[in-house]
Amino acid sequence: MDANGGVQVELELHKILIMAFTFANMKYTPLLVFQILLMVLYFIFVKYGGEDDHNIRGFEDTHVMIFIGFGFLMTFLKKYSYSALGFNWFLAALVIQWALLCQSFYHMKDNTIYVTKKLLLEADIMSATVLITFGAVLGVASGLQLLFIAIIETAVGCFNFWLVADVFKAADVGGSIAIHAFGAYFGLGVSLALKGKKTKSETAENVVDLNGPSYISDVTAMIGSIFLWIYWPSFNSALTNSNSEYQRAVVNTYLSLAAATVTTFVMSSALSKHHGKLDMVHVQNSTLAGGVAVGSVCNMFIGAGTAVAIGIGAGLLSVLGYQYLTPLLTRLGIGDTCGVNNLHGMPGVFSGILTAVFASLATKEEYGTDLTGVFEAMNEEGMARTAGDQALNQFLSLIVTLAVSFVGGTITGFLARAPFLEPLKDNEEYNDEINWELP
Amino acid sequence: MDANGGVQVELELHKILIMAFTFANMKYTPLLVFQILLMVLYFIFVKYGGEDDHNIRGFEDTHVMIFIGFGFLMTFLKKYSYSALGFNWFLAALVIQWALLCQSFYHMKDNTIYVTKKLLLEADIMSATVLITFGAVLGVASGLQLLFIAIIETAVGCFNFWLVADVFKAADVGGSIAIHAFGAYFGLGVSLALKGKKTKSETAENVVDLNGPSYISDVTAMIGSIFLWIYWPSFNSALTNSNSEYQRAVVNTYLSLAAATVTTFVMSSALSKHHGKLDMVHVQNSTLAGGVAVGSVCNMFIGAGTAVAIGIGAGLLSVLGYQYLTPLLTRLGIGDTCGVNNLHGMPGVFSGILTAVFASLATKEEYGTDLTGVFEAMNEEGMARTAGDQALNQFLSLIVTLAVSFVGGTITGFLARAPFLEPLKDNEEYNDEINWELP
Amino acid sequence: MDANGGVQVELELHKILIMAFTFANMKYTPLLVFQILLMVLYFIFVKYGGEDDHNIRGFEDTHVMIFIGFGFLMTFLKKYSYSALGFNWFLAALVIQWALLCQSFYHMKDNTIYVTKKLLLEADIMSATVLITFGAVLGVASGLQLLFIAIIETAVGCFNFWLVADVFKAADVGGSIAIHAFGAYFGLGVSLALKGKKTKSETAENVVDLNGPSYISDVTAMIGSIFLWIYWPSFNSALTNSNSEYQRAVVNTYLSLAAATVTTFVMSSALSKHHGKLDMVHVQNSTLAGGVAVGSVCNMFIGAGTAVAIGIGAGLLSVLGYQYLTPLLTRLGIGDTCGVNNLHGMPGVFSGILTAVFASLATKEEYGTDLTGVFEAMNEEGMARTAGDQALNQFLSLIVTLAVSFVGGTITGFLARAPFLEPLKDNEEYNDEINWELP
Repeated sequence: MDANGGVQVELELHKILIMAFTFANMKYTPLLVFQILLMVLYFIFVKYGGEDDHNIRGFEDTHVMIFIGFGFLMTFLKKYSYSALGFNWFLAALVIQWALLCQSFYHMKDNTIYVTKKLLLEADIMSATVLITFGAVLGVASGLQLLFIAIIETAVGCFNFWLVADVFKAADVGGSIAIHAFGAYFGLGVSLALKGKKTKSETAENVVDLNGPSYISDVTAMIGSIFLWIYWPSFNSALTNSNSEYQRAVVNTYLSLAAATVTTFVMSSALSKHHGKLDMVHVQNSTLAGGVAVGSVCNMFIGAGTAVAIGIGAGLLSVLGYQYLTPLLTRLGIGDTCGVNNLHGMPGVFSGILTAVFASLATKEEYGTDLTGVFEAMNEEGMARTAGDQALNQFLSLIVTLAVSFVGGTITGFLARAPFLEPLKDNEEYNDEINWELP
Repeated sequence: MDANGGVQVELELHKILIMAFTFANMKYTPLLVFQILLMVLYFIFVKYGGEDDHNIRGFEDTHVMIFIGFGFLMTFLKKYSYSALGFNWFLAALVIQWALLCQSFYHMKDNTIYVTKKLLLEADIMSATVLITFGAVLGVASGLQLLFIAIIETAVGCFNFWLVADVFKAADVGGSIAIHAFGAYFGLGVSLALKGKKTKSETAENVVDLNGPSYISDVTAMIGSIFLWIYWPSFNSALTNSNSEYQRAVVNTYLSLAAATVTTFVMSSALSKHHGKLDMVHVQNSTLAGGVAVGSVCNMFIGAGTAVAIGIGAGLLSVLGYQYLTPLLTRLGIGDTCGVNNLHGMPGVFSGILTAVFASLATKEEYGTDLTGVFEAMNEEGMARTAGDQALNQFLSLIVTLAVSFVGGTITGFLARAPFLEPLKDNEEYNDEINWELP
Repeated sequence: MDANGGVQVELELHKILIMAFTFANMKYTPLLVFQILLMVLYFIFVKYGGEDDHNIRGFEDTHVMIFIGFGFLMTFLKKYSYSALGFNWFLAALVIQWALLCQSFYHMKDNTIYVTKKLLLEADIMSATVLITFGAVLGVASGLQLLFIAIIETAVGCFNFWLVADVFKAADVGGSIAIHAFGAYFGLGVSLALKGKKTKSETAENVVDLNGPSYISDVTAMIGSIFLWIYWPSFNSALTNSNSEYQRAVVNTYLSLAAATVTTFVMSSALSKHHGKLDMVHVQNSTLAGGVAVGSVCNMFIGAGTAVAIGIGAGLLSVLGYQYLTPLLTRLGIGDTCGVNNLHGMPGVFSGILTAVFASLATKEEYGTDLTGVFEAMNEEGMARTAGDQALNQFLSLIVTLAVSFVGGTITGFLARAPFLEPLKDNEEYNDEINWELP
């Protein structure tokens, strides 16, 4: 090797050192560390499960909802589509790996997690909590803040899920309590804490520009909205235990969604100030409230007419929420960019209340062998719960979820204000520019 | 409560009264009444079915076709994407609830409808008739007109479906007769009656502007077109009775679609006036004609080569229709915005004729146990139909469908001209502005 | 018939002759001839298979990947979305018909191909090779060149597939060797030969304009990218033989994709020159490299931690490839518009090497009855291969694939320079204008 060669090697080494140094200082590097930590945990704790649940229903459809559904629904902002799609993907890809571990932590055998397709489905479902929270602070939280929140929220969400499912043994097949309400009120807590002392007037000027849709961004948002709507029956029915329970879940969700959709269009037009014009915000979101509202009771014997009624109620509740409640909350310092309170929050609470009502009406005569499929604790043994006890536990699981999520979200949001998470300045909100190389 | 409080209550009551009054006068309020009527009918007549058909094939894929497929295909107009997506959703959500009742009306037991996942699938399929009709008058019918037409068409379509399936006992597994041809000629009837005495020249000036695509609207339309294409094998095979019948339906539809697609590209280029350039209208629509043309015969023993031949024929027929027939019909007063005659109408008639041909060739030797699965009335009992009788019934079911749909559509279109359905003025056509709050 | 009538008939005949003459000269007419030839071959050779494989897993999901996934992923260029979607569809619709014959040619019984749903799936999978190659020359090959290349590549690809599967009996369940690496290096071969003596400097000026995305084209590309990502577990697991093998394939692919996604975001930001901004090219493509890299080993007992590790490695490899290797190859005359080398090529080679490693570690104790499902030639009979022999054959199948694909691609690309295939001039590249009627 001659002198020139030596110099070149030195130059290359120099380049590599600079790169390594730069890399160590780049903002998402802690995430690579976390990803490597996940890898190590998988090496230590995870083994392949047997054939059980290899044919679980609804996995692929739920997967579409998480990545296409949530991702595209949030592209409605005119200059935030890259962030909506990109962060949705980044967050969910991180969270599904993390949630699979956190959820299984409560059910390990011999310190081992046996991974099956069902666990993948449950990880997907848990990631929805984080994506709902993302919707509450869409455009106002930085990438690092979102990732920090996601990691905390997943752990808290899995703990709350354990309370709902294993402690209260509450029926929550479509996750309206433990997923939708949880994600929404965690998000509102984050939003409250994140904004801190900022007042609306300070930010008003620039927000006017970017906090809204363009013609095409509202069209791409519809990709997400409609796919969520289409696969919601699969989502709500995925974790049912018998074929008849499965079919009831599909039928009720289908009917509730259809009724909520019709109601949403009617209400959107009725509340318009411009000659009955329809509002895309309602159409993209309130149509889906029927899936949330029926979620936790869809496998129960509620009756087809009741499913339609629940859908009508959900559509009403959601459109009214967008029209009157969201502006009010925003003035109170609880911003909610996507209006997750109207799509996931209130309809989730509605569904939680319905579980208490229908649990109190459940009888062995009507449910037959499905009784213990739907209400795990109402089995026929000596220690079986009464319908009244089950109703109480349903109610408690809702209250606890609301408390854990809102308090957890508020604390997490407060911690997320740390400067090293690079909070956004006012003029950086709702803008892809700060996160992406734009064409 | 002090005086101030009393005044405030009064003010609130006043507000509520105004809101109630306004609401009663809003244009979509009759739809809410209809939605509540549907709820009542579901309470009275609908119960959960047993486990039968809980695992019906093709439901989710068909669901994607109805809501994503039809919805996005119709976004091709530059300034009508919100209406295409919104009304497609509104109409289908209403119709699936209504069609489930109308279809089941002919098969009630003890005045009860036992709802299963299969009934949901059939409701989805029936809603396609309304969406095809929507395509014929896309941009020229008002929202209220569309909703009025949808409610009537569903009832007439279910009656015609009963004629085809239960009276003529015709084979129509993919619905090319009772769904595609029905929807298309109902739509052309509506279009003829709706336009009334308007002449082309009167409207020409403003239509030039909005009755066409933009670069991006043609891309979003491809989302719909390709999803329709992808899931068409699932659609055509969803209601097959045996595994071998199912597999034949999938194979034939797949091959016919592929051949139609190749033929469409070749023909589109060949008929171009600009150096063989391709036309997006053909690509978005004629590619799908292969699915319609093979639809009613796809579960028969037609042979793989014949499936390819049918696809080639469908592509030819459809592109030629777009190029020469649609402009002619428009001049005759039968506008057809999406060219549903070329995608659903003529290929549907083609498929209907093919059913008569292949029914006349059907033998017990070739079909084995599938014979009565494909041709219900050709069972082995004493009263079984001959192949010739079956062919005649196939032909009659086609003729009756054409008559019922076109006459029904024309009458419905005429009724839809009533002023309270707010017919569009010429300068309101193809324009989201009148229906939507635009950004 | 009077004289006028005679004149009219003559005029009509004249028109038809002109049309026939024009048609015979149109550019895609040879494709219609090929389509008719395919029809004849289907009439002669293809019959319906029995019920076997009628319920094959993953067909519909793979179908979405081929037509929506690949199609929309390639819409990222600002002025080439119609061509990306249109040619993707045209090519795949042609190739699936052709591949079904070419693949089955090696397994005919009594000169007959018995078509089943499984054969449709395999035809879909083979068409991916052509679409990957399309990605390498996106915007720089004419429509006729693409169609010529597709027909040749399919035949060569099926031959190579036969070598891998039937001669070397290599494990390649997700096709990372015979589909991804093959398609990528065939594409680079085509790209090298197609460009010929053109130098970068000649073309630089106009290319700057169109060889890049717009804000909305990057959003539509995400539709393709995310659907590919979502259904990759279905793709990799579609051809597994047992339920436990299937579940392993799904789990490993899911974990590898998730880890690759997180890694891609981190690396994209780390390598950015602008304060850690993310690059859509990486996000749309390198996220998927995890699916390719784990593809050929996903049904083996690699362990969940290893699946995560493979994903991390794939993300690293792919982003580094986009950043440093693609510009270098372009300067060497091997253009690669979509960077297929970084998404399909190198991750495919990575996966091929992994197959040799994991084959060498395979034991009857660990695999149980899955051993011969995964490694066909390692059965228990006297002539069974040892793990070492299997590893060697895995390695050979990779080497042979690389050689056949690159040499085959280079020859095909050279032949595709024939003038009658209408090669593009420099100023016609990356432009829908020459192929499409634009609004």
